[in-house]
Amino acid sequence: MAGTDSTRSHAATVDRRTGPAIILVKPQLGENIGAVARAMLNCGLSDLRLVRPREDWPNEKARAAAAGADLVIDRARLFGTTPEAVADLRHLYATTARRRDMVKPVLTPKAAAGKLRAFLDNAEASGVLFGPERTGLDNDDITLADAVLEVPLNPAYASLNLAQAVLIVAYEFYQAQDVAPDVSQGRNGVIAATKDELLGFFEHLEDELDAGGFLIPPEKRPYMVRNIRNIFQRAGLTEQEVRTLRGMITSLASRRGRKGG
Amino acid sequence: MAGTDSTRSHAATVDRRTGPAIILVKPQLGENIGAVARAMLNCGLSDLRLVRPREDWPNEKARAAAAGADLVIDRARLFGTTPEAVADLRHLYATTARRRDMVKPVLTPKAAAGKLRAFLDNAEASGVLFGPERTGLDNDDITLADAVLEVPLNPAYASLNLAQAVLIVAYEFYQAQDVAPDVSQGRNGVIAATKDELLGFFEHLEDELDAGGFLIPPEKRPYMVRNIRNIFQRAGLTEQEVRTLRGMITSLASRRGRKGG
Repeated sequence: MAGTDSTRSHAATVDRRTGPAIILVKPQLGENIGAVARAMLNCGLSDLRLVRPREDWPNEKARAAAAGADLVIDRARLFGTTPEAVADLRHLYATTARRRDMVKPVLTPKAAAGKLRAFLDNAEASGVLFGPERTGLDNDDITLADAVLEVPLNPAYASLNLAQAVLIVAYEFYQAQDVAPDVSQGRNGVIAATKDELLGFFEHLEDELDAGGFLIPPEKRPYMVRNIRNIFQRAGLTEQEVRTLRGMITSLASRRGRKGG
Repeated sequence: MAGTDSTRSHAATVDRRTGPAIILVKPQLGENIGAVARAMLNCGLSDLRLVRPREDWPNEKARAAAAGADLVIDRARLFGTTPEAVADLRHLYATTARRRDMVKPVLTPKAAAGKLRAFLDNAEASGVLFGPERTGLDNDDITLADAVLEVPLNPAYASLNLAQAVLIVAYEFYQAQDVAPDVSQGRNGVIAATKDELLGFFEHLEDELDAGGFLIPPEKRPYMVRNIRNIFQRAGLTEQEVRTLRGMITSLASRRGRKGG
């Protein structure tokens, strides 16, 4: 982590043991392999395996499309057949766009992600197979797999491009990590107002609205006040924002004073 | 809608009311717009809006990259500014790669998907903003949004390409389909304000604050305006509340007029 070169922190997050291998069977275009590498590294994966890519390897178009995910490109391994590429894996899923006539469990990427995570926790190597761009996996390759992954998509238009299919599988795997991402509010360094500060602001606002004759008729005043307070309550105001709002009210209302005095 | 051609089944699945608008602000490359269209249709979305794309529109590279998602390309609409592009929307999220210094709720795409689904069930139009490929959204565009979306990804390599960012948001929306909607807070019978109504309110407020000399010094005005807008943005205002707030401003500010005149 305290590395002096910029790849060191990458290496820490893409250790071989962090997730499933991605196996591309006969990928046609270098650009697509690069986009796959990028999607993998986005999700912390780095074990890319290529079974007889159509273009030569290494491939400069792949490197360009990888947009900085060089580490995945550099580590990618070439294989002559799918069985060789998956030989060391203990669990293997195959992605398909359309249902085949095969008796195999069918999983969503989300369901598969939970299992892939469990395999990893158990130190059992796993992988996901993706077929060529146009045709998808052939039946012999699918037969190697323990289950089929199907992405639930618009049935009228379900064909994903290769990198997007990899992204969804890798994304779900990443989301299944117990490292709960911090999704709290983007409140770095700011502090929520106290209820006391909030009430002080409400009273200030309502005094000025009373003075302007806004909160009428009197029998509706409590209802109006509640509605106005709810607006600001929902905003989850910070201390600084309460000060700003009070300044605004003073500015708006004091113009009378300046003009009249 | 009642077409006799092959678009009929698509039309049925991509009706305007099936999901959020995708708004691309100053997209640079036609290919990326096409890839976005494809990802949208994969997930049943069709309302694509373009704010000042760098290349001419219509764009043949976009159509080629859309790989059959012509329907989304054909229906795409051009706008001169982001406020115009979002004027009719009642809920708006902005995607960002890095955290900004702005007090706004931060959501994952998954959390956002539940909310977008609930908005749809409530017949309230929504949208998601995506910035230019290299730079992302600027702060003024982010200020228009109710919340920020952040995709939880490998922190060492988190930059997604444009179409992949759209895919993840659209994919999560699609997966949220049958899930019980995360019902918004007791909003029975009320309807969220449009962004146009909200902007009208902001301008009214800022005019009055300018007249009162509150938004000074001039070099700090943009920053102050963003902070004030964010407060009200976060409150998720209804149409009625916007009217109430405008009435309050008029009441507070018009006292000068009554006294002085």
